[in-house]
Amino acid sequence: MNDNEHSHTISVLVENEFGVLARVSGMFAGRGFNIDALSVAPTTDPKLSRITLITHGNDQIIEQILKQLNRLVDVLKVVDLSSEERVRRELMLVKIRSGNHQEKIQKILQAYSGNLLDQEKNIAILEFVQEHDKNNEVLTQLGDFEILETARSGNIAMQTGKKILAT
Amino acid sequence: MNDNEHSHTISVLVENEFGVLARVSGMFAGRGFNIDALSVAPTTDPKLSRITLITHGNDQIIEQILKQLNRLVDVLKVVDLSSEERVRRELMLVKIRSGNHQEKIQKILQAYSGNLLDQEKNIAILEFVQEHDKNNEVLTQLGDFEILETARSGNIAMQTGKKILAT
Repeated sequence: MNDNEHSHTISVLVENEFGVLARVSGMFAGRGFNIDALSVAPTTDPKLSRITLITHGNDQIIEQILKQLNRLVDVLKVVDLSSEERVRRELMLVKIRSGNHQEKIQKILQAYSGNLLDQEKNIAILEFVQEHDKNNEVLTQLGDFEILETARSGNIAMQTGKKILAT
Repeated sequence: MNDNEHSHTISVLVENEFGVLARVSGMFAGRGFNIDALSVAPTTDPKLSRITLITHGNDQIIEQILKQLNRLVDVLKVVDLSSEERVRRELMLVKIRSGNHQEKIQKILQAYSGNLLDQEKNIAILEFVQEHDKNNEVLTQLGDFEILETARSGNIAMQTGKKILAT
């Protein structure tokens, strides 16, 4: 990212129509916008799904992204959560070779409210739920370990208080 | 889902090339396969991203999905985690009108290891991290409350032990 580029977390409410994810991601690809991370899952209304995505760009690019998203068929509502009071959380699983370093692992788990999800011999799966950037920090902290694999959700986000993503 | 259809969680390792998500989701749309939920985020190797998706179908459909995924440019590895020892976790945020029912909310949080993420007057955001199906159960348990909105990651998943998603 350049200096005038910022990371934005955007929530998109879409009709649960066939191919809606292909249309959204196709728009990004077609126009040269980046998707750094994305999640899509159903809402309590079976006709609607909710996409949360992380993208980056300067103010002009972000404005274009919001405009183009709003133009898409099946897109009902778009909110850039960067300018709103919100919670942003990412689930990250990290598999490491734990070796004889249980104490150091426990320290990192405590510091980031992590959770030891699985341990088989000297292979451990750690779980962290916090902001995407904070999860990046964990990976740096785990630098002394061999990181075998990671799996991340990207930020899942929601405005606080009574504002909701709805039409 | 019909009786002979099952939900499958599939991990896909992809090159972090422009438009790879559009190609993957476009293949699903083009061939009439369902995506029930999907997450994509970078791995520790900046050249690679990892997609976790939930789909459903009978054995023949799932076999087709795996075959077509493997054929896509930029797809390096595909694993159907349904037939493997694995952990599967979904992050779900639920905003409810909490009213005067703090005790009932605390009970549900305890029962599902949930977390009160935010509380503004009588609006609460609850966080749950567990399997997708178990999160559905939470929504049923919250049936007495007005659910204002939900945001979910879909399952994030990983094989346990030393097997990893790599080429």
